[in-house]
Amino acid sequence: AGPTVNFGEQGSVTFNYALQMWGQYEDYTSSNDDGDQTDFFLRRNRLTFSGQYNDYVGFYAQLEGGVDSKDGEDDSSTFFRDAYLTLDYSDPLRFMAGRFKNTFSRENLEACLEPLTLDRSAMSFTPFAGSRDTGVAMWGNLADGALQYRLMLADGREADEVAQDNPRMTARVHWSPLDPEYDYGYRGTYLGTQKVFTIGFAYDTQADVAYSDFNTGRNSAEDYTATTADVFFEYPTAAGTFTASAATFDYSIDNAINEDPDLALPANSELDSSYGKVGYLFPNKIGIGRLQLFARYDTSDFNLDSGLLDNTTTAGGFNYYIDGQQLKLTGEYRSVDFDNVESATNPTLQDHDQVTLGFQMIF
Amino acid sequence: AGPTVNFGEQGSVTFNYALQMWGQYEDYTSSNDDGDQTDFFLRRNRLTFSGQYNDYVGFYAQLEGGVDSKDGEDDSSTFFRDAYLTLDYSDPLRFMAGRFKNTFSRENLEACLEPLTLDRSAMSFTPFAGSRDTGVAMWGNLADGALQYRLMLADGREADEVAQDNPRMTARVHWSPLDPEYDYGYRGTYLGTQKVFTIGFAYDTQADVAYSDFNTGRNSAEDYTATTADVFFEYPTAAGTFTASAATFDYSIDNAINEDPDLALPANSELDSSYGKVGYLFPNKIGIGRLQLFARYDTSDFNLDSGLLDNTTTAGGFNYYIDGQQLKLTGEYRSVDFDNVESATNPTLQDHDQVTLGFQMIF
Amino acid sequence: AGPTVNFGEQGSVTFNYALQMWGQYEDYTSSNDDGDQTDFFLRRNRLTFSGQYNDYVGFYAQLEGGVDSKDGEDDSSTFFRDAYLTLDYSDPLRFMAGRFKNTFSRENLEACLEPLTLDRSAMSFTPFAGSRDTGVAMWGNLADGALQYRLMLADGREADEVAQDNPRMTARVHWSPLDPEYDYGYRGTYLGTQKVFTIGFAYDTQADVAYSDFNTGRNSAEDYTATTADVFFEYPTAAGTFTASAATFDYSIDNAINEDPDLALPANSELDSSYGKVGYLFPNKIGIGRLQLFARYDTSDFNLDSGLLDNTTTAGGFNYYIDGQQLKLTGEYRSVDFDNVESATNPTLQDHDQVTLGFQMIF
Repeated sequence: AGPTVNFGEQGSVTFNYALQMWGQYEDYTSSNDDGDQTDFFLRRNRLTFSGQYNDYVGFYAQLEGGVDSKDGEDDSSTFFRDAYLTLDYSDPLRFMAGRFKNTFSRENLEACLEPLTLDRSAMSFTPFAGSRDTGVAMWGNLADGALQYRLMLADGREADEVAQDNPRMTARVHWSPLDPEYDYGYRGTYLGTQKVFTIGFAYDTQADVAYSDFNTGRNSAEDYTATTADVFFEYPTAAGTFTASAATFDYSIDNAINEDPDLALPANSELDSSYGKVGYLFPNKIGIGRLQLFARYDTSDFNLDSGLLDNTTTAGGFNYYIDGQQLKLTGEYRSVDFDNVESATNPTLQDHDQVTLGFQMIF
Repeated sequence: AGPTVNFGEQGSVTFNYALQMWGQYEDYTSSNDDGDQTDFFLRRNRLTFSGQYNDYVGFYAQLEGGVDSKDGEDDSSTFFRDAYLTLDYSDPLRFMAGRFKNTFSRENLEACLEPLTLDRSAMSFTPFAGSRDTGVAMWGNLADGALQYRLMLADGREADEVAQDNPRMTARVHWSPLDPEYDYGYRGTYLGTQKVFTIGFAYDTQADVAYSDFNTGRNSAEDYTATTADVFFEYPTAAGTFTASAATFDYSIDNAINEDPDLALPANSELDSSYGKVGYLFPNKIGIGRLQLFARYDTSDFNLDSGLLDNTTTAGGFNYYIDGQQLKLTGEYRSVDFDNVESATNPTLQDHDQVTLGFQMIF
Repeated sequence: AGPTVNFGEQGSVTFNYALQMWGQYEDYTSSNDDGDQTDFFLRRNRLTFSGQYNDYVGFYAQLEGGVDSKDGEDDSSTFFRDAYLTLDYSDPLRFMAGRFKNTFSRENLEACLEPLTLDRSAMSFTPFAGSRDTGVAMWGNLADGALQYRLMLADGREADEVAQDNPRMTARVHWSPLDPEYDYGYRGTYLGTQKVFTIGFAYDTQADVAYSDFNTGRNSAEDYTATTADVFFEYPTAAGTFTASAATFDYSIDNAINEDPDLALPANSELDSSYGKVGYLFPNKIGIGRLQLFARYDTSDFNLDSGLLDNTTTAGGFNYYIDGQQLKLTGEYRSVDFDNVESATNPTLQDHDQVTLGFQMIF
C-alpha cells in the first residue's frame, strides 16, 4: 500500500496506484473481421484515495482509467469506479453509502487485483448494475466472524422503458467455520496465509424491471430474481497451498427475454451458469518469486430460444508473485467453445482461443 | 479540510474529498414516461488539489465525478470542474486565470457544499457558461472589506453559428457594512459565526451572441445583457440564528428566442426570475448535531411566446449538522407548479413533487 | 516539482500539477464560418502521480484534462495521458511498459511543458497512435551517455478494417558528443545549463496496416514505414544562449491514401515534412525574469493527389521565464500559408494568422 498521511486527531488518507497491463493474442480481430490480433492494453488503471474522517466515518474514492487501449480505443475517460462513505458502528453493525460493489456474488466481491485466475467471469456480474451499484448497505460479522450478513438497497435497473423504478434489494450470508473472512471484499487467494472454508448464499430481487409485452400492451411487468451459492476453500500444507472454489448462478425475469421485451434488456437476464476453479501454490520460492498454477471451468446457459451465446470456457495458467500481489506476472490460455451454434458472421461468437500475459503493480 | 503537505520554502498542497449522496423520490420517471421513481445518486463527488506555489501564486484543481448514477446514467466521466491559478498581489488587487466560477450571481458564487437550502436554483446560472467560465478575473476588497469589486473577461457563448466570438465581460460589486465577506466565494449560511448584511449588484454582457434572423439573412446579431441584485442577511441571537436572502435576475438577448434564432440558443436566454430563502438555526445542539430549518420560494418567467416553462417552485426542509458542513444530513420537500400551461406529453413539464434526502461528507 | 512523500524502506510518491492557459486570436471562427474569434482555453491541465516502488521499479500516472474550453467545448473528460511502469536494471538496460510517448521523433519526446517554441508541430506525431502508444520499450545509455538506443513494441494502428493487427516496431538512436541527453524525454531548451549537440535517427514500421484496395478486393495490404532524422544544438555563451534544432520526416504506406483505402486512414499517412527552429536567451534577467526569443519554420507536403493540406508555417515569439519553466509567459505570432490550393469553403484550410498568449505553472 502507498503512503498514508495523518492529520487532526483521528484523520488519515492513503494514496494508492494500481496498474494491470495485458498483452493479449486472439484468433479473431473484431466482430466483423476474422483474422487475428495482438493487443497491448491497460486492463485496470486506478488511482485510489481512501481514509478515515474519524474512528467511525471513512471514505473510499477510486478513479478508474477503464480498459484503456483495447482494440485501438485509446484515452478512455476516467470515472469514479467506487465512491462511498463507511460508518462502522461496531463489527456486527456497519453501513456503506454511495457507489460500491453490489453484494450478490462472491466472485464479484473478490478483490479485482487479487483473483485466483487471470480475471473474474462475466457470470459473476448481475444483469443490471453488473459490478457496482449505487445505494446503501448494512452488514456485519457475528459469532466471532464465523457468520456474516449483508443487506443492500440500490438502484438496480433504471430505464425510461419501465414505468416504476423500484429499488433493488440484495441479501447475502456466509458461514466460515475456519479462519473468518470478515471484510466486505473477499479474495481469490490468501496465498497460504489463511485456512479458509466458506459457504455463501445470496438473493437479489427488483420488482417490475421489464415488460414481457413491451410492444403489445405493456400490461405484464415482470420481476427480477437471482440466486447464487458459492463455496471457497484454501488450505496451506507443507506440500504447498491448495485452493478450490465453485459457484452456481440463476438469473431470471420470468423468461421476458424470449417474449416481447424492450430492446435494452440484457442478453444475460435469463442466465444459468456455474464456475469451478482450482489453484496450487508451490511451498517455496522459485527464482525471485512464488509460483501458483490455476485452472478454471465455466459453463453458461443463456436460455435464449435461438440457442446462441451458450458456451463452455476452459482456462489454465500461472501467477508468479515477485512481491505478493504488489508485483505479479500472470499468464493464461483460454478456450471458448459454443455449445449449440456458432455464429456464421460474428467471429466473437465462434469457438476461439486466447492467450494473455499480464503484469500488475499495486503501489 | 484534508491534509496539507508543505515543501520548499513557501510551497504547500492540500487534498480534499467531498461526496454528496442523495436519495430522491419523484412522481414521474422520465420525460416520456409518467409513473414515479426512487433514485440514489452521487450529486457531487469531488477530489480537490489546491496549494500555493509561493506567497503570491496559488492553484486550485478540482476533479468532478458529476451527477453520477442519476436516472441510470452510471460511471460519469470525470472532468476538471475548476482549474485555475491565483495571483494575490494585495487584498485590493487579486487575479485569477483559468476555469472557475463566473462572477455574476451571488447564489452561483455560494459554496456548492454550503448552501442554505438543498441546492442552488438554476436561475443563478447564466445562459452561457452557466456555473463556470474560462477566462481571467481581477478582484479585491476595499474599505476594510466593506466593499468588494470583481471584473471578469471570459469566453461566454462560443458557437459555430455566431460569426464573431467576442469576449464576455462581467462586473460585480457588493457592500457589507457588518462583518465583511472578503472571499471570492460566498456561503449560503455562516452557521451563526458571522453577522452579515450584504447587498450586491452585477452586470454581464457579450456582444453579438446570437442572430435573431438566423435562417433569414443573418443580418441582426443581438447582444446579451444581464443584471442581478441580491441581498443576504444572517444574524446570530440567543434565540438562534436567522438567515434571509433574496435576488432578482434579468437575462436578455433582445427577444431573439422568440424570433428566428439558431437552434442551440438556450431557453433561459430571456429569463426574468427571483428567489427568496430563509433559515433558522436552533441555538443549541439537538441530539448529536445542530438543526437548521429552511424554506425557499422561486419564480421564473421565461418570456417564451408559448408560455411554456414559467413556474413557481416552493421548497422546505432541514439541515442537520453533525460536524458543521463536514458531516451533514439534508432533507427537502419541493413542489413545482407551472404557471401557464402544463405539457400534455412531458411529465417533467407538468406540476410535480420531489422529496430528497441527502448526506454529505467533506474530507 | 511538488511534494514527495516517502514511505517504507525504498518507496516514494511525488505529486505534480501543471496548467497551461492560452488566450488565442484567430481570423476565422470554425471550419464552416469565417469571421474571427478570441478564445481562452486550458491547453494542458495535468495532475501527475509518480514514484518508486523500490530502487528498480517505478511508475508514472498522469491525468490530463485535455484541451479544455477551446471553441466552447467545456468540461473535457479526463483520461490517463500516461500510465506506465519502469524497470531500471542499469543505465544501459531500462524497460518501460504501459502507455507512454512513442519513441520515434525527437520533438514528440521533448517535454510537453518545456518546448522552445509555443508548442510542437503536428508533424512530430506519427499517423497512428500519434503522441503516445501502448506497449513495451527497452532503452539505455552507452559510452557515458554519448550514445542512446531505444526499441519499442506497441499497438500502432488497430482497426476493424485491417485483417491482421500486427505489432508496431520502433527503433531510435542518438549521439551526443558534448553533454549527454540521458533521459527518455528530451527538452526543447535547457535554458543555458547544458552544452548539447545531438544527432538522432529513428525508424518506425508496422506490417499490413491498410488495404490499398479496400473496396475492390482487399488483396493488397500495405506496410507502414517512417524515418526521421533530427539535430539539436544549444550553447550558452557570455552573450546569451543560442539554440537551433531541425528535423525531417518521411511517413509512407506505399501511397495507399491516393488509391482505395479505408475511410479511417489518416490524411498524414504519406507526409513529407521538416522543421527548423532557433532560439536566443538573453544572458541576464530583464525585469523579474529571463527573456528568450524564438522562431520556427515548418513545411509539410502531404502528397495528396488533390494537393490539399500542403502548407508552410512561420512563427515567432518569446518565452519570459519568471521562475524557469515553473512560471512562464509565452507569446507567439503564427502565419499558415497553403502552398497549392486554398479551400473555397473551409476557413481552416485558407491562409490564416494566429496570435497566442500563454501562461504556464508547473507545481
